[in-house]
Amino acid sequence: MKFSGSHILSVEQFERADIERIFAVADSMEPYALRQKVTRVLEGAILGNMFFEPSTRTRVSFGCAFNLLGGEVRETTGFKSSAIAKGESLYDTARVLSGYSDVICMRHPQEGSVAEFAQASRVPVINGGDGANEHPSQALLDLYTIQKELRDKGRSLDGLRIAMIGDLKHGRTVHSLMRLLGLFTNLQVVLVSPEELAMPEEYVELLRGLGHRVDVSSDLANSIGHVDIVYSTRIQEERFGSKEEADLYRGRFRLNQAIYTQFCEPNTVIMHPLPRDSRSDANELDNDLNQNPNLAIFRQTDNGILVRMALFALILDVADQVDKFSRPVNWYHSRTF
Amino acid sequence: MKFSGSHILSVEQFERADIERIFAVADSMEPYALRQKVTRVLEGAILGNMFFEPSTRTRVSFGCAFNLLGGEVRETTGFKSSAIAKGESLYDTARVLSGYSDVICMRHPQEGSVAEFAQASRVPVINGGDGANEHPSQALLDLYTIQKELRDKGRSLDGLRIAMIGDLKHGRTVHSLMRLLGLFTNLQVVLVSPEELAMPEEYVELLRGLGHRVDVSSDLANSIGHVDIVYSTRIQEERFGSKEEADLYRGRFRLNQAIYTQFCEPNTVIMHPLPRDSRSDANELDNDLNQNPNLAIFRQTDNGILVRMALFALILDVADQVDKFSRPVNWYHSRTF
Amino acid sequence: MKFSGSHILSVEQFERADIERIFAVADSMEPYALRQKVTRVLEGAILGNMFFEPSTRTRVSFGCAFNLLGGEVRETTGFKSSAIAKGESLYDTARVLSGYSDVICMRHPQEGSVAEFAQASRVPVINGGDGANEHPSQALLDLYTIQKELRDKGRSLDGLRIAMIGDLKHGRTVHSLMRLLGLFTNLQVVLVSPEELAMPEEYVELLRGLGHRVDVSSDLANSIGHVDIVYSTRIQEERFGSKEEADLYRGRFRLNQAIYTQFCEPNTVIMHPLPRDSRSDANELDNDLNQNPNLAIFRQTDNGILVRMALFALILDVADQVDKFSRPVNWYHSRTF
Repeated sequence: MKFSGSHILSVEQFERADIERIFAVADSMEPYALRQKVTRVLEGAILGNMFFEPSTRTRVSFGCAFNLLGGEVRETTGFKSSAIAKGESLYDTARVLSGYSDVICMRHPQEGSVAEFAQASRVPVINGGDGANEHPSQALLDLYTIQKELRDKGRSLDGLRIAMIGDLKHGRTVHSLMRLLGLFTNLQVVLVSPEELAMPEEYVELLRGLGHRVDVSSDLANSIGHVDIVYSTRIQEERFGSKEEADLYRGRFRLNQAIYTQFCEPNTVIMHPLPRDSRSDANELDNDLNQNPNLAIFRQTDNGILVRMALFALILDVADQVDKFSRPVNWYHSRTF
Repeated sequence: MKFSGSHILSVEQFERADIERIFAVADSMEPYALRQKVTRVLEGAILGNMFFEPSTRTRVSFGCAFNLLGGEVRETTGFKSSAIAKGESLYDTARVLSGYSDVICMRHPQEGSVAEFAQASRVPVINGGDGANEHPSQALLDLYTIQKELRDKGRSLDGLRIAMIGDLKHGRTVHSLMRLLGLFTNLQVVLVSPEELAMPEEYVELLRGLGHRVDVSSDLANSIGHVDIVYSTRIQEERFGSKEEADLYRGRFRLNQAIYTQFCEPNTVIMHPLPRDSRSDANELDNDLNQNPNLAIFRQTDNGILVRMALFALILDVADQVDKFSRPVNWYHSRTF
Repeated sequence: MKFSGSHILSVEQFERADIERIFAVADSMEPYALRQKVTRVLEGAILGNMFFEPSTRTRVSFGCAFNLLGGEVRETTGFKSSAIAKGESLYDTARVLSGYSDVICMRHPQEGSVAEFAQASRVPVINGGDGANEHPSQALLDLYTIQKELRDKGRSLDGLRIAMIGDLKHGRTVHSLMRLLGLFTNLQVVLVSPEELAMPEEYVELLRGLGHRVDVSSDLANSIGHVDIVYSTRIQEERFGSKEEADLYRGRFRLNQAIYTQFCEPNTVIMHPLPRDSRSDANELDNDLNQNPNLAIFRQTDNGILVRMALFALILDVADQVDKFSRPVNWYHSRTF
């Protein structure tokens, strides 16, 4: 795809070469994210960070990524008090707001709304999540993390073995990830969920049709033994008839250090889209994994900065100029990934 | 008036020469708003953007205007959790906040509050709307838009023919615009509204006393036939006894492409202070006008950036230095007004 | 203490030399706060300003202080919509957010939460207030103000005579100030409050144990006659059984110009942590003191900028480089402290 001036709305717009380009640019952003250097390549540019639904993590990540390229961020959060709530169309909102900034990130509770907004926008729009539909930068940072974790072991995305666990029916994260994985070769995917929360057949067929091996299971212990990545997601209480029923399910898809040690290969990488519920009865991804070096959940969010910097650099066409506008860092920093 | 260090609280503080100065500076901001150049003239300066009442459009417009001059923006939104709600006086709020920034924009639901705040402030204050009272930057951007639209046809504000439509009783926008129009000569103004929502006599008298022709009507079709500008505003449901009554009125002051074609001169410019209600039963300014090149509503919001940049440049006394701190733009842009 | 890379969580971490270092750096920030010069020493750095409890004043003060050093600010306000509310641990929140910025300011309603957050953070954290526990930058700006006010009279903190008035039981401000005062010598402290709202014995003992004179009183008039500083705080209604009872107390600890003239030495300095309740029945610190040049309450908030700039400069280790990255100011300013 041509990145310059393009919207980023869906993972479906990427081919393998596009992914590789994004990841190469993301790699080149590391010195800036690590505060080894500062770049001012986007000094004077403005990001309109429009979050019509709350998401601290994604909002701040986009904002910081833009700041790290030297640009400014103007933010809008909330929905109730916005003109949209008073009957303004997405068309009007887009025409107006795209007159203010150079690029827009938008999260909106309604499926398809960001694409509709983008159509009327005069500047590139990045989808920061539109309801149950898409959240492409999350899928990219997940895939980028998988690639980096494998690369440290001399491997690549081709040949990846991955287990996805939890609510695979409702999670847009795992759906988008499935689609991106389809761009690579020779995968082994195990989908572990309660039957009621199984991955939609569409995605299973997609990967199988591309020649990948996809197994479906509802038994955690027997599914995580021979994979490179365990990608855990939340089982949400509201999907079930009662808290008791949900608790039953949650317990069965819980991962903790004891389960990891008993069932996983050494160095199996643990991922999660976050936030993780750390309350004692959450039974999701236990805190006793925090010291496990294979817990990659915070490397995921760190990588989110790199991937979002890369997206901005590509759609604003400055990827090749970042270093030209760089200089040393003056202040204290001891950051490591 | 002397702009340097002054508050911008009301359109009443401007004489014709002041308007012309603001508009000349606004014109000079266009290369920056179009991203043909970047300026850093206000690098290091801070705008305190204090919105004690929600207004995404105005807030973001002021913020972006300041960023486009190179300055930083610190924002406060909401009211309930503010110290004001806990009994802090506007005097105290102003003394404190004016110690933080170089200039303040303030919106507040209470009439006169921004002027009271400005009196205690140690830095210049721009009124971003104080209840039903004033919103001077909106009136300026409306007038600036009219002037630009006329200029493209070889005309000027002197001799302008304008119809204002809708709720002319409650709209602070049209009141302020009436006052500014009084600074020019030889105008023809048609005021079209339900009788209950007529323009207050004070403004009618003002313009007539200055020698302008002012007609009052409640018949849309016969009022928009010989004007340069149709300025439409919303008929608000809450002004009437029932939704049914309001709907009746709304239908009578609706503008769409068919009505435009039948009754207006070719090239009559359509304006609206926005947001426009685009719900199917709004009967305000129909979406089928969106492809009409004379629909200037988004040029209005674009012009808002220029006018607000001009106000900042004038009151912070950098209008003549903007170009000195300019340089080329590095990134992708395809912006046109 | 070593400032570079350190968290600022509690006034207990400071020794006298640390206080003196902070104040010296704060003094050196004055030309920048006065807009006599601009510095860009932190250009490219990002402050994560995380306010999980509202506080316009403190939040904007930290943000502006960081901007005045040339850095960027990414903000989060509110609590309900945050991931923390959905069960995310402070550990996870800290791991994630500290991957985005170079330093974090955090306010949180829960005592000890900021310290817990800091333990998991990969960047320095400044406590912006954690419930009833600590608010170290407020205590520092109070002490810095006292020092400056005394210095103008050729005095120093050693030998200070101060009266603290109001709710001394619940105010974290006065508790932290007591602790800091303990670092100096030969103090005379009068604690004036209703008996029910007396300063906790712990703090009284602390200062007496260090050889200072501490008197306890519930009689305002006889307590403020021979002090350099009157530090007033609010008597909060909710501490008493009824509004009537509270009103009774409030009246007894009220300060206005008449009381000041009658009972205080000339030039006694009046301080208050703000916000002050200026409603007519507040009986706290009357508005008729606003013209009294000894009312230092707005000098306190101005000094807050200097102290917070100093904290950032010290923990990011740029205090000695601020001037190196400085240049003249281009824009209008008439600021004086």
